[in-house]
Amino acid sequence: MLQVGIIGASGYIGVELVRLLLIHPEAEIKLITSRRFAGKKISEVYPAFKGLSDLAFSDVNLQEFSKLDLVFTSVPHGKAMEYVPELREMGIKVVDLSADYRLSKEVYEKVYGEHRGYLKAVYGLPELHPEVRNAELVANPGCYPTGAILATAPLVKLGIVSEIIFDSKSGISGAGNEPSERSHYPNLAENILAYNITRHRHRAEMVQELEKFGKVKIHFTPHVIPSIRGILTTAHVLLKESISEEEVRRAFKEFYKDTSFIRFVELPKLNDVRGSNFCDIGWRIDEENQRIVVLSAIDNLIKGGAGQAIQNMNLMCGLDETTGLMFPPLHP
Amino acid sequence: MLQVGIIGASGYIGVELVRLLLIHPEAEIKLITSRRFAGKKISEVYPAFKGLSDLAFSDVNLQEFSKLDLVFTSVPHGKAMEYVPELREMGIKVVDLSADYRLSKEVYEKVYGEHRGYLKAVYGLPELHPEVRNAELVANPGCYPTGAILATAPLVKLGIVSEIIFDSKSGISGAGNEPSERSHYPNLAENILAYNITRHRHRAEMVQELEKFGKVKIHFTPHVIPSIRGILTTAHVLLKESISEEEVRRAFKEFYKDTSFIRFVELPKLNDVRGSNFCDIGWRIDEENQRIVVLSAIDNLIKGGAGQAIQNMNLMCGLDETTGLMFPPLHP
Amino acid sequence: MLQVGIIGASGYIGVELVRLLLIHPEAEIKLITSRRFAGKKISEVYPAFKGLSDLAFSDVNLQEFSKLDLVFTSVPHGKAMEYVPELREMGIKVVDLSADYRLSKEVYEKVYGEHRGYLKAVYGLPELHPEVRNAELVANPGCYPTGAILATAPLVKLGIVSEIIFDSKSGISGAGNEPSERSHYPNLAENILAYNITRHRHRAEMVQELEKFGKVKIHFTPHVIPSIRGILTTAHVLLKESISEEEVRRAFKEFYKDTSFIRFVELPKLNDVRGSNFCDIGWRIDEENQRIVVLSAIDNLIKGGAGQAIQNMNLMCGLDETTGLMFPPLHP
Amino acid sequence: MLQVGIIGASGYIGVELVRLLLIHPEAEIKLITSRRFAGKKISEVYPAFKGLSDLAFSDVNLQEFSKLDLVFTSVPHGKAMEYVPELREMGIKVVDLSADYRLSKEVYEKVYGEHRGYLKAVYGLPELHPEVRNAELVANPGCYPTGAILATAPLVKLGIVSEIIFDSKSGISGAGNEPSERSHYPNLAENILAYNITRHRHRAEMVQELEKFGKVKIHFTPHVIPSIRGILTTAHVLLKESISEEEVRRAFKEFYKDTSFIRFVELPKLNDVRGSNFCDIGWRIDEENQRIVVLSAIDNLIKGGAGQAIQNMNLMCGLDETTGLMFPPLHP
Repeated sequence: MLQVGIIGASGYIGVELVRLLLIHPEAEIKLITSRRFAGKKISEVYPAFKGLSDLAFSDVNLQEFSKLDLVFTSVPHGKAMEYVPELREMGIKVVDLSADYRLSKEVYEKVYGEHRGYLKAVYGLPELHPEVRNAELVANPGCYPTGAILATAPLVKLGIVSEIIFDSKSGISGAGNEPSERSHYPNLAENILAYNITRHRHRAEMVQELEKFGKVKIHFTPHVIPSIRGILTTAHVLLKESISEEEVRRAFKEFYKDTSFIRFVELPKLNDVRGSNFCDIGWRIDEENQRIVVLSAIDNLIKGGAGQAIQNMNLMCGLDETTGLMFPPLHP
Repeated sequence: MLQVGIIGASGYIGVELVRLLLIHPEAEIKLITSRRFAGKKISEVYPAFKGLSDLAFSDVNLQEFSKLDLVFTSVPHGKAMEYVPELREMGIKVVDLSADYRLSKEVYEKVYGEHRGYLKAVYGLPELHPEVRNAELVANPGCYPTGAILATAPLVKLGIVSEIIFDSKSGISGAGNEPSERSHYPNLAENILAYNITRHRHRAEMVQELEKFGKVKIHFTPHVIPSIRGILTTAHVLLKESISEEEVRRAFKEFYKDTSFIRFVELPKLNDVRGSNFCDIGWRIDEENQRIVVLSAIDNLIKGGAGQAIQNMNLMCGLDETTGLMFPPLHP
Repeated sequence: MLQVGIIGASGYIGVELVRLLLIHPEAEIKLITSRRFAGKKISEVYPAFKGLSDLAFSDVNLQEFSKLDLVFTSVPHGKAMEYVPELREMGIKVVDLSADYRLSKEVYEKVYGEHRGYLKAVYGLPELHPEVRNAELVANPGCYPTGAILATAPLVKLGIVSEIIFDSKSGISGAGNEPSERSHYPNLAENILAYNITRHRHRAEMVQELEKFGKVKIHFTPHVIPSIRGILTTAHVLLKESISEEEVRRAFKEFYKDTSFIRFVELPKLNDVRGSNFCDIGWRIDEENQRIVVLSAIDNLIKGGAGQAIQNMNLMCGLDETTGLMFPPLHP
Repeated sequence: MLQVGIIGASGYIGVELVRLLLIHPEAEIKLITSRRFAGKKISEVYPAFKGLSDLAFSDVNLQEFSKLDLVFTSVPHGKAMEYVPELREMGIKVVDLSADYRLSKEVYEKVYGEHRGYLKAVYGLPELHPEVRNAELVANPGCYPTGAILATAPLVKLGIVSEIIFDSKSGISGAGNEPSERSHYPNLAENILAYNITRHRHRAEMVQELEKFGKVKIHFTPHVIPSIRGILTTAHVLLKESISEEEVRRAFKEFYKDTSFIRFVELPKLNDVRGSNFCDIGWRIDEENQRIVVLSAIDNLIKGGAGQAIQNMNLMCGLDETTGLMFPPLHP
């Protein structure tokens, strides 16, 4: 049984880690931290956990983590770098869910600012990076990049893509559990809000990962929709040369042939993946063969966050990647 | 043309007053105040008003109100009492939308705390209080009491009612435009939240108004639903003696025969009144004739707030009560 | 490993049975039927199941059920009685999710019409009926009665209750997966709809079960809210005599001391139980001690349907009642 | 006072025409038709209209229209062509809200099929087509093209655009008032659905209108979001050459300098235009100056339907285009 801890367990992603690890057959949560709720039981703060867990939040004291096999750091970017190097020195495996280890130092500092604890990590998209299996430090991808990269990497690899416009639509849980203007019900209900329209920081991850497969221009515009969970990515893939439906299908099948959580469906929909670790993918080639529209749907808190982190943990610790993650979506 | 001002014009009700007065053919807004947004145009703060109004918020300076015919005070309870007495001394008619003048001084102090500027006012439910027509100070009713009292006064007047349980369901705009735990989209969407379950302050208004028609026990439990606007009141009316459908219908028709905004419908629904000043009412007598369920639907910001305030203004200023208010609901 | 079948597996409750049984460690689904989708894989009809199940729907042929341990009948009332007697003659345990076996024959025929296959069954609310453990035919309760009865039985048992008004608010999934006027998004969003205002058939179950604990008048008014899953029951409990908070708490604790899925919380909320088999209960005593408001929250498709049916299966087959059901709610 | 009629007044757009014309100071509705509801009052079918209108639906009998000044045809494509030629022969002005007169005959027949009553009409986007003022037959634009064309025509006119990807998000009312799989609440709530992903027929209008300003490749992918009203268009405009923020602003200002309903805002949002005839437009130039993202927000039933039709009526009949249309959005 793996002994794990979670630094930053009171945000939506942290809580989701707790929720999923509670039903994981091979892992046991030993420690959860939260500055804000230190000393309180998780079931006091989140009544959803009543009867399910006696865990209590504590303050961060890295010494207490020394006997653990793996730690999830689920804190804001800039904050993870305060813990990760020390945890790694203690020999503890780390899955970091912040942005701190996803990019090269150079790109990170351009996009996020100074990095005060850089280490090399594996980018934790196991469908693209089998080397997660031997990794000791994995940088869990951003929610938007997960949906965007998975939707288009097979096409970029074919060498036929000139440019991609990612028009993404996310549930509001991606913005965290603090009430804000954007999450205020009258501002979001019956609405859809574009934000960071040409300059969302997640774009850097898309560029980094997709350019491994070939040169391609990447545009990204995110929106929040009146939904709690889920990201639908509409990838408008502009082509350099035409391609047949058959070739596209073959490319996707081949690319994902050894994976567990990619499903090809006619129409990816949030309510077919909500509550699950799946990434559903579907596509259409437009009539003049100048564009392929690829849609992907994920649960932003699971495949786009806590579920993917556990998938990484499984691989880092020698388990089957599906262990504890093959639960069905909540449908309807 | 009436010259009017609004003290506290940046909250949902204040903004709704602006919105409705902009299309009122006999009134003109001269002044709007907001501490928070003083100096800013309303169209800067609320882009919905772009191209419609050049009004700018100012700080409250009561001297500037001296030439107005009527002022709406749309500030929190406890705050209105700082302005209303002085406005009345200046001879200006006032419609107060706070709770400060709705109750007797005794009841007010029991429910809300000390009153530091008490004046006698008319309770501004024009369907019950024709004396609004000559009033100089009108206390605009709470949103919940509007729906609750209109739904049941005719039955209480018949003398057949022993007890009423008001189970009310409100859109979240009633809680104001400040983001909060309750208005946080993930907390409200796909949910319904009971609050102030046995002790909401609006109950005092229901008791005051309904007991004018007869002795009756009043219970009240409010909920917020995932809706921006609207209050559906489910009034469970327990009977002392049985009554026929015919008698009930006659009682409602007679009671509201001279009114403009009461409609009798098979099934009151929020989306039949949203954006309008109507109060839709419908009822069912249960099989053993021990209960009548009366439903009423209003737009909480209009008939439950700004619209009713303008209806009161119309009557206080000698206009037809429907002036500027006979617009259709936004359907669908 | 239990071998089970589901007659009527394509409606929301039937699909939920499949979903939950797929993660049940001691049961295996051998057969699922659907007239409409016979011959199709469940993953073709519901892409949510892709990668999770190879089950295909078949037409009903009772002979194929002969080797099963237990069958769930999840068909409309009037339809279950066509299958249940024969299944019972074949010696197969049955959990019926229709209304056909919930009431006495006399009451059934008054409420639903002629019964052409009556058998005596245990009412499958295990928190009230430990005899589920030895039962061979269990009638799974209606969704509304589950929330209503669990919220109030302990108080009725105390002998202090004169009358209860159940004002229930349900997600629309309770109305099934067929598009209808009521489920049409523009008719339900930002709205709340009362229906069967004084005469919903589920009331008969509430009367039957609660009167086992004492004489009490029962009123029931259901509403649908803009939510997919969940029932919040607001039980307005009118008292014959006053009672202290302490006594109420003791009554609830004592009543449910041997149960697994009842949680006492400050404020029951749909989003604390969604996706789980819990029933959250909370209460407030009103100031004059004439009313207790009890709130209960359930997921209508789980504790109000498929989850409770599996809880019954567990007990009928000698398993712990929590087997395969102790998963956390989807929060947020 | 203009005397007008509406053929097909029971769908969402037809009902919206009634709603808006009821508050129009210079037009009076004389006739409304509906096959389905012939003989019924509109207030019986839609209780929202109780107390506001005594209009009753009738069957279509074109002779009864002979004295009218103008008729709105709000019927499905293929159906309008049965009425429009005869109405025009009777000398009656027509605003057709179907697709039948928006395109050239050639394009129409390629996109929609055979045309059995072709006439030349003015494309009723008054911001682009001042010739609406003298027109006798106006083809009211589709809802998506309205948002898409208004967002981008000024840029195409500049000659700097190579390609546009319109990623549009619409409220479900655009799909009509008939319940369907897509409009079923559990299928749409907390979701977003792409449809007609590469082949929506509205694209032909975008191509026709935008190519008047220059050669440009047009892609279009629509989605429905959990919203009743509104279309947000995210136009990803790919550039042939770079341009400054200042030039873009000047181009938009110049292009729309004589219009009434275009507003430039920082962030176009559905809830700033809902219930109004405005089209809000905003844009961002991306960092490498290869893309401009233009956002536009409209109420699909008003600026994208009935409101625009009345704007056209105003112009065709010599009124100011804003007559009866300068009402504020419903905010919040």
